[in-house]
Amino acid sequence: MSDNSVFSERGSKDVVETGLEFMPKFDADGLIPAIATDAVTGEVLMFAFMNREALAETINTRRAVYWSRSRSEIWRKGETSGNFQNVTEIRTDCDQDVIWIKVEMEGHDAACHVGYRSCFHRAIPDDGKAVPGLVLKRTEDAPSFDPDDVYGKKS
Amino acid sequence: MSDNSVFSERGSKDVVETGLEFMPKFDADGLIPAIATDAVTGEVLMFAFMNREALAETINTRRAVYWSRSRSEIWRKGETSGNFQNVTEIRTDCDQDVIWIKVEMEGHDAACHVGYRSCFHRAIPDDGKAVPGLVLKRTEDAPSFDPDDVYGKKS
Repeated sequence: MSDNSVFSERGSKDVVETGLEFMPKFDADGLIPAIATDAVTGEVLMFAFMNREALAETINTRRAVYWSRSRSEIWRKGETSGNFQNVTEIRTDCDQDVIWIKVEMEGHDAACHVGYRSCFHRAIPDDGKAVPGLVLKRTEDAPSFDPDDVYGKKS
Repeated sequence: MSDNSVFSERGSKDVVETGLEFMPKFDADGLIPAIATDAVTGEVLMFAFMNREALAETINTRRAVYWSRSRSEIWRKGETSGNFQNVTEIRTDCDQDVIWIKVEMEGHDAACHVGYRSCFHRAIPDDGKAVPGLVLKRTEDAPSFDPDDVYGKKS
């Protein structure tokens, strides 16, 4: 897939920020950050990256596809776990260098590889201060699935 | 501010992913991505970066502070525009390398420097396909403020 076959080339700052032509910016590694939120609750589920191919496939199939930086491969979310993300809306920001997708989850109704619904399942307490040893609180009582069952037991 | 004076050092993968000690990861540039959502509507308002100092100040003051990559300086959101972001919740993800803050906005009730409520004020149409020239649709009727009035007219 050549660089210019799928998306418009970048325009001027004004065109990018206030125009209506989609011209996403990919960084030096060819990636764009992507935020996935729950279409119903608004909760942030996960943060990952897409390359051109992943973004194009997400747009065309309305299923979330990312780029796995750890595995260096296209990551069709749910292919292993069954936890597909059906995309209800795709937005971009003023600089067109971030993607926000709203999704409805299939499978375990969970996005996190550790088994929780959201990757953001821990919060800083309201009175927490920035000191070493700061203890987080859980925002979910328990994982939605056992990663060992879904991904295989860690050796 | 030395690197280890404010936050715990990183632990093992298991400790980071399932433990309760806050040990945020900063990238090679000393930055961590931060997602800000509206505390009431759940809408994603903006995406930016924090350095150690910005994250510590956000936690300690419960007001959003970022690191401006374009200006290479601490960015106390609202200092120029009056559009402060009061933080109601701070979360981190499984890898502890992303921050999600929920905020209540002051001032113009807007987060975007172009004047819109959310930086994500444009969406790909539901039937939009990944082709050059793809036209976005606006998700906000009009800006909430005039950037020229707030930041000064562009020369």
